[in-house]
Amino acid sequence: MSQTYIDQLKGHIGESVTLKGWLYNKRSSGKLVFLQLRDGTGIVQCVVFKPNNEELFETANSLGQESSIIVTGTVKEDTRSSIGVELDVTGLEVLQNVHDYPITPKEHGTEFLMDHRHLWIRSKKQHAVLKVRHTVIKAVRDYFDNNGFTLADTPIFTPAACEGTTTLFEVDYFDDEKAYLTQSGQLYNEATAAAFGKSYAFGPTFRAEKSKTRRHLTEFWMVEPEVAYASYEDMMDLGEGLILSIVERVLSDRQEELKTLERDISKLEAISGPFPRLHYDDAVKMLQEGYDSSTNLSLLDKRFEWGGDFGAPDETYLSNQFGKPVFVHHFPTAIKGFYFEVDKDRPECALGIDLLAPEGYGEIIGGGERAASLDYLIEQLKAHDLPQETFEWYLDLRRYGSVPHAGFGMGIERTVAWMCGIEHVRETIPFPRMLYRLRP
Amino acid sequence: MSQTYIDQLKGHIGESVTLKGWLYNKRSSGKLVFLQLRDGTGIVQCVVFKPNNEELFETANSLGQESSIIVTGTVKEDTRSSIGVELDVTGLEVLQNVHDYPITPKEHGTEFLMDHRHLWIRSKKQHAVLKVRHTVIKAVRDYFDNNGFTLADTPIFTPAACEGTTTLFEVDYFDDEKAYLTQSGQLYNEATAAAFGKSYAFGPTFRAEKSKTRRHLTEFWMVEPEVAYASYEDMMDLGEGLILSIVERVLSDRQEELKTLERDISKLEAISGPFPRLHYDDAVKMLQEGYDSSTNLSLLDKRFEWGGDFGAPDETYLSNQFGKPVFVHHFPTAIKGFYFEVDKDRPECALGIDLLAPEGYGEIIGGGERAASLDYLIEQLKAHDLPQETFEWYLDLRRYGSVPHAGFGMGIERTVAWMCGIEHVRETIPFPRMLYRLRP
Repeated sequence: MSQTYIDQLKGHIGESVTLKGWLYNKRSSGKLVFLQLRDGTGIVQCVVFKPNNEELFETANSLGQESSIIVTGTVKEDTRSSIGVELDVTGLEVLQNVHDYPITPKEHGTEFLMDHRHLWIRSKKQHAVLKVRHTVIKAVRDYFDNNGFTLADTPIFTPAACEGTTTLFEVDYFDDEKAYLTQSGQLYNEATAAAFGKSYAFGPTFRAEKSKTRRHLTEFWMVEPEVAYASYEDMMDLGEGLILSIVERVLSDRQEELKTLERDISKLEAISGPFPRLHYDDAVKMLQEGYDSSTNLSLLDKRFEWGGDFGAPDETYLSNQFGKPVFVHHFPTAIKGFYFEVDKDRPECALGIDLLAPEGYGEIIGGGERAASLDYLIEQLKAHDLPQETFEWYLDLRRYGSVPHAGFGMGIERTVAWMCGIEHVRETIPFPRMLYRLRP
Repeated sequence: MSQTYIDQLKGHIGESVTLKGWLYNKRSSGKLVFLQLRDGTGIVQCVVFKPNNEELFETANSLGQESSIIVTGTVKEDTRSSIGVELDVTGLEVLQNVHDYPITPKEHGTEFLMDHRHLWIRSKKQHAVLKVRHTVIKAVRDYFDNNGFTLADTPIFTPAACEGTTTLFEVDYFDDEKAYLTQSGQLYNEATAAAFGKSYAFGPTFRAEKSKTRRHLTEFWMVEPEVAYASYEDMMDLGEGLILSIVERVLSDRQEELKTLERDISKLEAISGPFPRLHYDDAVKMLQEGYDSSTNLSLLDKRFEWGGDFGAPDETYLSNQFGKPVFVHHFPTAIKGFYFEVDKDRPECALGIDLLAPEGYGEIIGGGERAASLDYLIEQLKAHDLPQETFEWYLDLRRYGSVPHAGFGMGIERTVAWMCGIEHVRETIPFPRMLYRLRP
């Protein structure tokens, strides 16, 4: 008994097929039972007509939500259906008749749904979000693979941290040695970029932050390209191309899902290049003018001063000025990592870039040009109170064929949240991990 | 000064181009210096002729291995070159002249090379292995993406273990809670397969084994498909298709790299379907006959008895009988995980499958059909001394729409080692992690 998938039904009109799946919803009306069957690729309405087969009708009528069933029937064109077809049921095999499925069409609290994440992902909206995630990841990988990048995944176990150990998860390695879970593959990417010219890493990264915001997970996925002989400006070109290709792919491949999510797709359709590129100086001015000139800007609750790092309200304010993603570059050196290249004429400015997503989704790309000079980096390690010994291998990259190079990281979950237009990143990953969430 | 990449040079014959890279090797002969320039996409010979420009000649002649240089010149067809072209140098900019690069063309010990992994990956052979890895991963993802699978990555942090905690890495989560690093996403995949029909996870997995063999890493990448309404036989079909598509892709896209690795590609070209499918009973017989009938089988040092698990020599012996990958199925229930479905007529046999790679590369696929019955699983948890409470969410998958389903895991590093024909998996990942190897 071979299986036909629901997303293939349109090619089988008039044929008898067998569908295998679960009962998503059911309604009866006199002599008819309408079974909404889901099989992971879609949902189709299966119609059981009592006079045709009374026993089958009774069976269908007895089914509870999420019962596992195998349905045979004839595919009929149906223009009212969003998938263009429905099924006239001729046979029904019940594997399990379920009567106490915990997630009902009524409203449930978030904690309850998160506790039942293993079941919640069957729901239409969660299903849609994760299909968008699949497409975002596919678009990202295709973009780099088609642009001459070599995938070179960096280790999860690292002996040292980029920037202190306070937000690192510690692991007992062997023989009392400690390992830390990676926060970023960047330092390693710098090594692979020197081997492959253009490389990227794409895997889970970890941050042991005790913050509970809608933008934070303890375990999240990040793609990190790195390019030898490249500048921070090249990274803005690369990041812009990446974002445009993601938006285009999601709009073309996930229309149905965006509809399910009630996403205002005009907001995504409006995304086009070139993205504005704002010097940090100008971003500061814009924030200050915003604060000074208006009394109804509840967003900005104090005057932003040069030298500060953007908070979420600042990011939202800036991106709201443009309605499309905006790059900010030349951040104060003092607030950036030890490895940033600085502007030769203004060493207080680092050649860092951030990309702020529109609609309040905040920073989704962060990166820039890396310092190429051995002496400068040794100085910086000292200034940041980092042990040089741990970074000797990294310093080797400046001893042996140092070149200008640049890269960035893009967070997958924030990007998916933006594409879907949903509030919290916890729904953008199959099994989110947060401060108080390690289960299921 | 825009950059041309070496793998694009053939399209620029007769033109003047600028290459940016590193000096891979150099030789001089009278009035000529031959610079082997690498840029991550290939290596090209750049020729400097003294009478053309004496200063440029002196500069070129002074360069040490891995110096970072920008070379301008005219692309000339050269049939002796493996890439079909060489460069007549007209300009040379030296970013860094390196004179003490630690990895010289002479032989180095493995520990030394592993300590310098961040530089070693620039070497021709290591570069080739990692390009094959890139292609294997691309082939894997394309295979699942093109066959209706949804990528649904499973969490790295897990509250519990599949099979005991002895080989698990423990992490301090928050507030004295312990988390464990995933050994397999399988249990979670079973949840996503019920949501998507066909799902796969692809990420790093961890095993805290104190073993130091050529097949083990503490951190390795695994792809794990899971399919609802599927049997262990379907998994053999799926796995066979996967392997065939990997082999085909590597042969078509990585010819140059396989040549560099001196891979006997006839061994890969010989891989074709269908793969033999051996009942465990028959595999045991084959091993016993092998042991009984011959005195020169140094491989099998004792008679294999029904009920045992295959060791590396057994796997090698079995796969040697076929010269292509071979599936073994129906393993003894007693040596398999708690979650395996069993043969209804012979409950001592589990519906597990392994795929043994040829040439001694051992098990590269392991999986099978999962138990669908709630009662049986509860029994099994008890029998395996596992706390039911921790697995309640997993049991929910049998409470709410249980269906027959199956899946498997394929280890990336072993597959890459097999494709490359190399001895040790440590070279198949950019930065390997092993018992005594956490650096660089």
